[in-house]
Amino acid sequence: MRLQTNHFFNKLILLILLFSASAKAQIQKVEPPFWYAGMKNPELQIMFYGKNIAQYEASVSNNVIIKNVEKTENPNYLFVTIDTQNLKASEMVFSFKSKNKVAFTQKYSLKERKTNSAERKSYDASDVIYLIMPDRFANGNPKNDSDASLAEKGNRALPGGRHGGDIEGMIKNLDYIASLGATTIWSTPLCEDNDKEYSYHTYGQSDVYKIDSRYGTNEDYVRLSAEMHKKDLKLVMDYVTNHWGITHWMIKDLPTKSWINQFENYTQTHHRREVLTDIHASKLDQEVCVDGWFVPSMPDLNLRNPFVAKYLTQNAIWWIEYADLDGFRVDTYNYSDANAMANWAKSITNEYPNFNIVGEIWMHNQANLAYWQKDSKIGAIENYNSNLPSVMDFTLQDQIGSAFNEDNATWDNGMIKFYNNFTLDYLYPNPNNILVFAENHDTNRINDVYKYDFTKYKLVMTLLATVRGIPQVYYGSEIGMGGDKSKGDAGIRQDFPGGWNGDKNNAFTKEGRTAEQSQYFDFTAKLFNWRKTNEAVHFGKMTHYIPENNIYVYFRYTDAKTVMVVFNNNSTEQTIKTNRFKENCKNFKSGKDALTGKTFDIASEIKLESKSALVLELE
Amino acid sequence: MRLQTNHFFNKLILLILLFSASAKAQIQKVEPPFWYAGMKNPELQIMFYGKNIAQYEASVSNNVIIKNVEKTENPNYLFVTIDTQNLKASEMVFSFKSKNKVAFTQKYSLKERKTNSAERKSYDASDVIYLIMPDRFANGNPKNDSDASLAEKGNRALPGGRHGGDIEGMIKNLDYIASLGATTIWSTPLCEDNDKEYSYHTYGQSDVYKIDSRYGTNEDYVRLSAEMHKKDLKLVMDYVTNHWGITHWMIKDLPTKSWINQFENYTQTHHRREVLTDIHASKLDQEVCVDGWFVPSMPDLNLRNPFVAKYLTQNAIWWIEYADLDGFRVDTYNYSDANAMANWAKSITNEYPNFNIVGEIWMHNQANLAYWQKDSKIGAIENYNSNLPSVMDFTLQDQIGSAFNEDNATWDNGMIKFYNNFTLDYLYPNPNNILVFAENHDTNRINDVYKYDFTKYKLVMTLLATVRGIPQVYYGSEIGMGGDKSKGDAGIRQDFPGGWNGDKNNAFTKEGRTAEQSQYFDFTAKLFNWRKTNEAVHFGKMTHYIPENNIYVYFRYTDAKTVMVVFNNNSTEQTIKTNRFKENCKNFKSGKDALTGKTFDIASEIKLESKSALVLELE
Repeated sequence: MRLQTNHFFNKLILLILLFSASAKAQIQKVEPPFWYAGMKNPELQIMFYGKNIAQYEASVSNNVIIKNVEKTENPNYLFVTIDTQNLKASEMVFSFKSKNKVAFTQKYSLKERKTNSAERKSYDASDVIYLIMPDRFANGNPKNDSDASLAEKGNRALPGGRHGGDIEGMIKNLDYIASLGATTIWSTPLCEDNDKEYSYHTYGQSDVYKIDSRYGTNEDYVRLSAEMHKKDLKLVMDYVTNHWGITHWMIKDLPTKSWINQFENYTQTHHRREVLTDIHASKLDQEVCVDGWFVPSMPDLNLRNPFVAKYLTQNAIWWIEYADLDGFRVDTYNYSDANAMANWAKSITNEYPNFNIVGEIWMHNQANLAYWQKDSKIGAIENYNSNLPSVMDFTLQDQIGSAFNEDNATWDNGMIKFYNNFTLDYLYPNPNNILVFAENHDTNRINDVYKYDFTKYKLVMTLLATVRGIPQVYYGSEIGMGGDKSKGDAGIRQDFPGGWNGDKNNAFTKEGRTAEQSQYFDFTAKLFNWRKTNEAVHFGKMTHYIPENNIYVYFRYTDAKTVMVVFNNNSTEQTIKTNRFKENCKNFKSGKDALTGKTFDIASEIKLESKSALVLELE
Repeated sequence: MRLQTNHFFNKLILLILLFSASAKAQIQKVEPPFWYAGMKNPELQIMFYGKNIAQYEASVSNNVIIKNVEKTENPNYLFVTIDTQNLKASEMVFSFKSKNKVAFTQKYSLKERKTNSAERKSYDASDVIYLIMPDRFANGNPKNDSDASLAEKGNRALPGGRHGGDIEGMIKNLDYIASLGATTIWSTPLCEDNDKEYSYHTYGQSDVYKIDSRYGTNEDYVRLSAEMHKKDLKLVMDYVTNHWGITHWMIKDLPTKSWINQFENYTQTHHRREVLTDIHASKLDQEVCVDGWFVPSMPDLNLRNPFVAKYLTQNAIWWIEYADLDGFRVDTYNYSDANAMANWAKSITNEYPNFNIVGEIWMHNQANLAYWQKDSKIGAIENYNSNLPSVMDFTLQDQIGSAFNEDNATWDNGMIKFYNNFTLDYLYPNPNNILVFAENHDTNRINDVYKYDFTKYKLVMTLLATVRGIPQVYYGSEIGMGGDKSKGDAGIRQDFPGGWNGDKNNAFTKEGRTAEQSQYFDFTAKLFNWRKTNEAVHFGKMTHYIPENNIYVYFRYTDAKTVMVVFNNNSTEQTIKTNRFKENCKNFKSGKDALTGKTFDIASEIKLESKSALVLELE
């Protein structure tokens, strides 16, 4: 268990301890359970939790300096800040005295960091992110579908129930994911969520130092990371700063009333985050936005409380070190205090300068999105710097949901929607580091949006694969999965076929896929595997031309290579003259289509099939 | 005529000169025709135009320093730059020599400026602008409806023809405009437009130093200004930098080929000004945007040519001094070279630090609008400062066109549309100096949009009168005029009833108005006359609250006064609790409605009629 040298909760041992070692009984939790030697920030705030622990005087061995001991209004908590500067990996012992006598002690480890841990690489525009809801992906270990200590039991028959997908299921299917050309996995949260129902989404965490046992163990998560790294895959953790679950152990015994945001009556956020930057906003509207709860089952964390901010910062860093993470996705990013989040992001990127963090800033105006990206000049209008490296291109997603249905373009629909979106990239400090996506676990599924029209699916994926930014795909779409969000969230979070023993259809294997699934998969795999090796679509410049007649042409290019992308959004064949594009076509004579291998003469014109895209490597 | 000490074209005298004074015959035009002593910028570039004038050597009397004489590839032009520093109002004589002999001379006047000319005030948020298309407003002088020298003759029967409205018509109806509570007139251009047809819009000017004789004379325009100033009204000129008319005399004999933007074949602008700021734009798209012509009858001026830039700057300043102007509205602002326009605006505001200039930046994204306002932090992203004091709130206008029809609000329609618009004010360097409007001479008429629903008209006007910014109303709407743009521009540019002798309906007078017209007028006049004296809605702060249930509440306030504005956009009666607004309601007990005079108790709740607005002065 994590109170001792091994770190994770083990009920049996705890029971033994509770009844045998009275000295230990004083301490029920230590968080972080251990730490690492050689972090840039030498300050470590250790939270000791135990009945009336605040009555004791803490000291520590090894000449370690205690910088600060802080108590809260709850005597069961003691926050001890030590200075780890110059400390090697080692084990120290905390002593807790009462009336000058040591009443009990607690061992604490500083571990060795992995080589070059601080300089770890992260995900970027050379990657393709595959988003998984682990409960719905693959049930690799049917034995952990339920856990006696956790309220909700496995029940695959229930749309909003726990279906049993787990870390083992992810590990087993890494080759599948890699074969798709994806390079990175973002899995929705895996820490324990002990809600009675709907815990499968796992955003209401009850213990943020512990993997939910229905997904596996902490060690399983570390193994997932290691297995992924062997395959050159990157692991992105979904971090939640805004709220915990109502069953979180600290929520049940709050260190301070102000650990969470509380109103006289239950108050829900209004979700209109426009108030945050609005110079005309009422204070009340701003307060309810940030301090209001997301849902009644998710107490809203008060990051203005420095203990909370520190706790979440250390927890995040702990996971990076412990599970050797390659990045974060952060949930409901701007539902938390903006300055606290800026400090949180800064603390992490101070430790890991290359570490990418994409925040869920779900807004529909580019300026409001750009505001939140690190070093934003828009943020600077209000003297704000989020320190958040990446945001999600929700405005692009807004357009993806309709543009490919618009065969007859008007002034502002059809392909011009994409064009217009990218014209606003000047607002972003770093448009290359924006997540581009058609869908995620909270939105309509793109195959449902486009009524399972494979032609439109191809257009969507080709767009994601070739525009600036980091493409993200949502598990299952690559085999044609749809789903209807109007039937509830479960409608878009179905089980991946083949993830469960006995599934008749196994889309994880070539043999198991239906003809239709193969059509989707083969196309997607070809596209993203092509993308993998093409730096021009990773970090190359982008030049685009005003769509004419619902045809959109853009180029991605480096000094070494030029890729010409052409979308014909008409339901009829079209021909485009290439002289308009001579700035980019230069002296190239032909282009080889990455998708079909067919070579096109680009000297004067290109014939385009109806509703099609070409990805031409110019030669 | 303006070649001599009197300044305006007079055919008779010209003819006499042409046949009698051969020395004078060399000079056909001098521009500016005269200038003013004591301008901040002492440099004055005088353009002399005459057959082969470039062959002559220019000199000047009174020890005036000639800084520069420039010739172009057209020998009929000579550009002489003199230094006016320290020169008093005076008359000088230019001599033009050939083989050391004076061939001919030209008198030139520096006039006295009006007292405090440089410090003139301008329009701002304390004003209400009344927009007039003069040809369609009132025909004060039926004798000037046609002019022998101008191609298009008066023909009121033709929707797109010249109807005869003129400056005299404006002068005669100043009291009407003032009685409405408007304080400022923006008239569409009045300089000569000699197009064969559609010249009534007058954006295709053929002489920018001369009022179109069908509107009156230059002296009439000066008189309009003087009469307005007597009545505390302000005059805003509609300036056009982007293009002239195809019949402009200089277009017929271009000083340089590069005076206008020319392509191998006629090339029209694509109107997508997003390219200007777009980091991905192709050079071709950017070039066509700025250099492409608006329409074939309007040659596109090349402001990158320093002669053109200087010409337009001096012309603008000349009109300010000559006609004692209170401000500019600038047409098609960002269709011209952005840097040249920034210099143009800077040159004018250097001379007149308080002078307001609102640019027509017709875009649909707040960031793209804010980019163009002076000292914009968005512009600064691209190291651009437009120096343009004001832009038009086209995004608000977009919302005004639909929101009041949306009785059943969803997440993003109904009153939330206005709210959302104002949440983005943080992007503007100066949101108080933005023009707010429901319509203009290029858009649908608001009464047509709302199908002549007086209730909705009242909501629109109340919004314009109480939000931040400078309200602008379009002539005729205040008496219920509509018109259908789908029938062409003439559909929204009808004659104001009563502006023509013999009009059966004369809406300029109380007696002449129909009952319906009176209803519109009386409401509008009450509203804007109330606004006139209420600083809180001019420059007061604005705090607004997230609309709930399609009810929008905002406050405008100074230390001395608080105005509470409430919109109920529901088609049913509603009640709002006031405790939510206590930040602004403070200890006020009641509010007197500016529109009805009725007093409302605001202690706990306010009853709202269906589709109504309250403008409560809190007490």
